[in-house]
Amino acid sequence: MSRFFSKKYENLTPYTPGEQPQDMQYIKLNTNESPFPPHPAVAEAVKQEVESLRLYSDPDCKALVAKLAKQYGVAPEQVMLTNGSDDVLNFAFMAFCDEEHPAVFPDITYGFYKVFAEINHIPYAQIPLKEDFSVDVADYCGVNKTVFIANPNAPTGIALSLDEIEKILKSNPNNVVVIDEAYVDFGAQSAVALVEKYENLLVVQTFSKSRSMAGARLGFAIGNKNLMADLNTLRYSTNPYNINRMTSVAGIVTLENQAYTDKNCGIIMENRENAAKALKKLGFALTDSKSNFLFASHPAIDGKTLYTELKRRGILVRHFDKPRISPYVRITVGTAEQMDALIRTIGEILEENQ
Amino acid sequence: MSRFFSKKYENLTPYTPGEQPQDMQYIKLNTNESPFPPHPAVAEAVKQEVESLRLYSDPDCKALVAKLAKQYGVAPEQVMLTNGSDDVLNFAFMAFCDEEHPAVFPDITYGFYKVFAEINHIPYAQIPLKEDFSVDVADYCGVNKTVFIANPNAPTGIALSLDEIEKILKSNPNNVVVIDEAYVDFGAQSAVALVEKYENLLVVQTFSKSRSMAGARLGFAIGNKNLMADLNTLRYSTNPYNINRMTSVAGIVTLENQAYTDKNCGIIMENRENAAKALKKLGFALTDSKSNFLFASHPAIDGKTLYTELKRRGILVRHFDKPRISPYVRITVGTAEQMDALIRTIGEILEENQ
Repeated sequence: MSRFFSKKYENLTPYTPGEQPQDMQYIKLNTNESPFPPHPAVAEAVKQEVESLRLYSDPDCKALVAKLAKQYGVAPEQVMLTNGSDDVLNFAFMAFCDEEHPAVFPDITYGFYKVFAEINHIPYAQIPLKEDFSVDVADYCGVNKTVFIANPNAPTGIALSLDEIEKILKSNPNNVVVIDEAYVDFGAQSAVALVEKYENLLVVQTFSKSRSMAGARLGFAIGNKNLMADLNTLRYSTNPYNINRMTSVAGIVTLENQAYTDKNCGIIMENRENAAKALKKLGFALTDSKSNFLFASHPAIDGKTLYTELKRRGILVRHFDKPRISPYVRITVGTAEQMDALIRTIGEILEENQ
Repeated sequence: MSRFFSKKYENLTPYTPGEQPQDMQYIKLNTNESPFPPHPAVAEAVKQEVESLRLYSDPDCKALVAKLAKQYGVAPEQVMLTNGSDDVLNFAFMAFCDEEHPAVFPDITYGFYKVFAEINHIPYAQIPLKEDFSVDVADYCGVNKTVFIANPNAPTGIALSLDEIEKILKSNPNNVVVIDEAYVDFGAQSAVALVEKYENLLVVQTFSKSRSMAGARLGFAIGNKNLMADLNTLRYSTNPYNINRMTSVAGIVTLENQAYTDKNCGIIMENRENAAKALKKLGFALTDSKSNFLFASHPAIDGKTLYTELKRRGILVRHFDKPRISPYVRITVGTAEQMDALIRTIGEILEENQ
């Protein structure tokens, strides 16, 4: 810290991203990336765009916004793009929370919500998940705060139904409810279906997981056009050209090949179910994940040891050294071969630890 | 605006970017882009990177940071990358300004400084430029505020010398001085040379102008490593993966071909001088621009009319409808052919307006 750093931020604890080793020697199952590359047509389209990089991008990204709007059955004015979904989540904390509208989210969820609240000096409450790690919907009904719920939740993978989300929306008519659907494409229901009905609903999604574009940084929000206008006020007051031309083109080509995304999601869900079965056979307890990761604990080995032993053997998973979830590891669902290697290696570790 | 928008921002006026018509029919001299595409090697390198887009980017962008550090003769810990330089300017307002450290910048400068101050609720003062649009260095000496100076300044193109910048740095030891060098590669002196000597100096640059990458979004800051640590605290608290993989690779290949950048800057400076001469011949008054744009006014035609008449004839320049500078237009320096077309067209407009 320098002596010039504003006191406003001196106690701020930044987010800790998962390890991103650059050597690529690991079977990398720690940051919920897709095991599949983008559609083959993306590379050539991006290459063609490079000549135009001398020009600024379209601040409204009209072409990509139109495609997304069509795919989700909403108007273009109901869509906004950001440089990864973290940016739009930060904007949502800025726009819809303040002293009179504190934020509320589960105690166990995406770790960045707390950081967004703190950097924006927004009061927040964390509501404990139930014993089984599910969200107790009753806790959020009439809570009179700006609600942030990851659905499916991370790192648990557990999803709420649309009926449950609707209860939260209906009972908080004077607060925005943000549904963060980073993992929705792996078996949960999207709340985009409720956007027309609830002006207080903001749905956030990303191209990082199901669309194999984590390294391209493309997130988006869908909601009432007045909410989008608010978010755009903030976007145009910080970084209007937030989406670069290459990412924009990659997004367009990816949407044009939705069948490829759907196929990949299908494979990942199948691999998830197979890996879950195999882990249960090895004695693991698992949550009912509707995401592209598994959340698993074993009575004979604690989460940190399992993480460390796997890393030593060339497999990266994620461990959170936090109350309630420290017995668990979060395992991204990869290819069938990667999951086989994982199961085999965990089997060996368990045997050695007996 | 929605009824949910926080009162904190209800009076916020966003930045207005220059027109970005997507039809590409104009000779586009309005947003200070380079007339030259990125180096030919960029396209293939970016194409090769697309397969890896499934993986998050390196939050520290080690490879690109190392190259930049080497080029500027600083340590990697003295460099930070952002999604365009607007992001790092916003971080600088957040990190180094507050009630006790108000911001100060010229009345006529990059229009975003005011927006950054307002979105962050930072008190600020605007110091009038001298009659000839130059910065009066004495105004900033011992000003006891966090200083933001674009050097060369926009939209005037006028540059301060290193000696003048050093006076400001030396006389404000308890405040950060931000030198925004978006246009430094077209004939001004970079303050990076002073970074070792002044812990309160933050230099901001971009790949948008001299490096032909406006549409790739890549800005960076160079300064004391403690300042970088502060900025990184904010970056890791909002968007750690702020640079996408394609932009990172494009940046690396661009730095590997510095001779191409230097050649392009040389051509632009030559075109600038030739166009300036021709405009003077037509009766224009011009500032002494060290940037990739000209700032020009004519006694016989006001700025808005000239802008409108040029646009009608397929040439876009920028006009600012603001006190003191409304008689002027800002003209990006393009290719020799584009500048010839501009001069010819302006000649016709002047004749018609006689």
